[in-house]
Amino acid sequence: MSEFKQAEHKLLLIPGPIEFSDPVLLANATPGTAHTSPAFIPVFGESIKLLRKVLLSTEESGSQPILIAGSGTLGWDAVGVNLVERGDEVVVLNTGYFGDSFAECLEIYGAKVNQVKAEVGNIPTDDAIIQALASKPKIITITHVDTSTGVLSPAQHISSLVKKHSPETLIVLDAVCSVASEEIKFDEWGLDVIISATQKGLGVPPGLSVVLASKRAVEASENRKTPQQGYYISWKKWIPIMKNYEAGKPSYFATPPVQLIYALHTALESITAKPISERIDAHKAASKYVKDELTALGLDFVPKSRDIAANGMTAVRFPSGLKAPDVLPKLAERDIVVAAGLHKAIVTEYFRIGHMGVTAVDRQRGDLEKVINGIKEVLGKK
Amino acid sequence: MSEFKQAEHKLLLIPGPIEFSDPVLLANATPGTAHTSPAFIPVFGESIKLLRKVLLSTEESGSQPILIAGSGTLGWDAVGVNLVERGDEVVVLNTGYFGDSFAECLEIYGAKVNQVKAEVGNIPTDDAIIQALASKPKIITITHVDTSTGVLSPAQHISSLVKKHSPETLIVLDAVCSVASEEIKFDEWGLDVIISATQKGLGVPPGLSVVLASKRAVEASENRKTPQQGYYISWKKWIPIMKNYEAGKPSYFATPPVQLIYALHTALESITAKPISERIDAHKAASKYVKDELTALGLDFVPKSRDIAANGMTAVRFPSGLKAPDVLPKLAERDIVVAAGLHKAIVTEYFRIGHMGVTAVDRQRGDLEKVINGIKEVLGKK
Repeated sequence: MSEFKQAEHKLLLIPGPIEFSDPVLLANATPGTAHTSPAFIPVFGESIKLLRKVLLSTEESGSQPILIAGSGTLGWDAVGVNLVERGDEVVVLNTGYFGDSFAECLEIYGAKVNQVKAEVGNIPTDDAIIQALASKPKIITITHVDTSTGVLSPAQHISSLVKKHSPETLIVLDAVCSVASEEIKFDEWGLDVIISATQKGLGVPPGLSVVLASKRAVEASENRKTPQQGYYISWKKWIPIMKNYEAGKPSYFATPPVQLIYALHTALESITAKPISERIDAHKAASKYVKDELTALGLDFVPKSRDIAANGMTAVRFPSGLKAPDVLPKLAERDIVVAAGLHKAIVTEYFRIGHMGVTAVDRQRGDLEKVINGIKEVLGKK
Repeated sequence: MSEFKQAEHKLLLIPGPIEFSDPVLLANATPGTAHTSPAFIPVFGESIKLLRKVLLSTEESGSQPILIAGSGTLGWDAVGVNLVERGDEVVVLNTGYFGDSFAECLEIYGAKVNQVKAEVGNIPTDDAIIQALASKPKIITITHVDTSTGVLSPAQHISSLVKKHSPETLIVLDAVCSVASEEIKFDEWGLDVIISATQKGLGVPPGLSVVLASKRAVEASENRKTPQQGYYISWKKWIPIMKNYEAGKPSYFATPPVQLIYALHTALESITAKPISERIDAHKAASKYVKDELTALGLDFVPKSRDIAANGMTAVRFPSGLKAPDVLPKLAERDIVVAAGLHKAIVTEYFRIGHMGVTAVDRQRGDLEKVINGIKEVLGKK
């Protein structure tokens, strides 16, 4: 291993992209390597296996990880292309900006979308969910953490409602902002599709679309009655490729992002070196620290209560009289980068702090203390 | 600038991915940076501008570069989603494996595809092209270099045929294996769409879909009568984002692959430091050297003649009696990686050498001498 140290930079504490470890960044600088080379095949194959481990799924369950060049958004199209047929009913549980967009995407693929919207900062009620399930929709989507509000949806509980009231419904979890930072038990909860990306809890540069599909979801895509409406993200094309790499055989459909997969492999090896539950606990502790400190400063949050607030990020309301230009540039002067608001209805009223990956897990870095102290200074509380 | 040196590795001389320069790889290891940060915005904005420069287009022409996370293959879907409407006639000029696949992709989007196929190693005749243009198709696609055969299509000449016989037809150049290694004059030739990727002539890790659309192509996508059939690669979504970054304003639709864009920016700055014609001449010289040396060894090529053979790669027929396992592993033992055959009809009969990017331009590296000497040794000619 080289003594590579990443360049000096401002501390990046937004809800993704996040800070990277030196080994992950060095892996992203792997020299030119063929996608079919004996060096790369096991790296890709193991990444596929390790992803199941992070999401608490098993090969025996028949679940299929699919890793292709793209952003998290491409995962929405993957659901649209592979699972939606014109006229299919889809329930979208909407906890913010990303619910709106997922719905828009699925409608393009012909879904009849029934959006169950929560007020900003809240989650849909059980009654509303149960009512939406009455028509036995083909798919229900949950935004696990809506990055625009920091609201954490109770995915296990919602899944149990689906199992009870419409067991045939495929459960799709938009886990872009939750994979490897929030608890996800793919097999136990009976999830069908997870869509995610590399630049958040996984702590890898952006550019890789991360999908895990259950056996049931793969079969639904195989048994559709009408042709798929896309090529690049067709599971029919990619699943044989993933199976080949997992079996140690090179295979080609489109060129995988070799360097990003080296980086992902490095991150996954580090993540799975300990039980996943420890990693999630570290995120819970980081979140508690940040939220307790901010509460002590008299600040309030976008999520209505702590039990529906994400552990990988915090959406904080500005104190009365302050706005983004009063706070964010002053933090940037202190080399701390946080994110502005995103949800249209409250965009000027809050900002967002990310605390995922090395920031949460490697507390020796002092990232959290740095941002809290920075906020204290900027608010004149120190 | 750090003194970063990439790790020791086998010399990668396949038709993509290719060898990277140290600065490009170091840029791919840029620390965590927000896609909306003041540091990143000019890097993205300039990359957009520099791409036009590489392809000999101008902002005044109204051409629009579009850079999103994905592989070269995603560019086919971009054409399908944005330009094809059900029933549209598309002529696909087929010079190998990649013509077949492009046609398959466009058919998914409802195109009525008329494939004009050349025999393996050849290009379609002018007569066949003119005949296919008689019905005034909406789109014609040209695989500039078919990576499976190393055949270089005469894009300028074909474009002139289109201008003469069906001037309304949109000309799409699949330039995955030709951008920055073969001559392309976007504005002068009147091209409408170039689709490419980063891991070939641009010398950047794989994972970024590179598209350049003419004003006419953008207008065609805006004026379509039926809705687009995709979300992630919708130009409607991305063009405002690209225009914003080019104007120095952050903007969000889906997270761009920040590190890959830093790497691309580094590569584009290096490429555009000299006139593009010099870079193309360097590739011609590299190609001539490789092909002359192989000819001197009595070897033959897949392309029927030198004037339709790519300058960025060489598809070489094995000498009689030899096959891939007799040659490729022995080159790999000498730390030289070349590629096996890909075109189904002749897959066992040939192999492929890539000579793009630093390999062709920085002759001091001695990459070409190394592969030629390796081949001589393996064939017992030295």
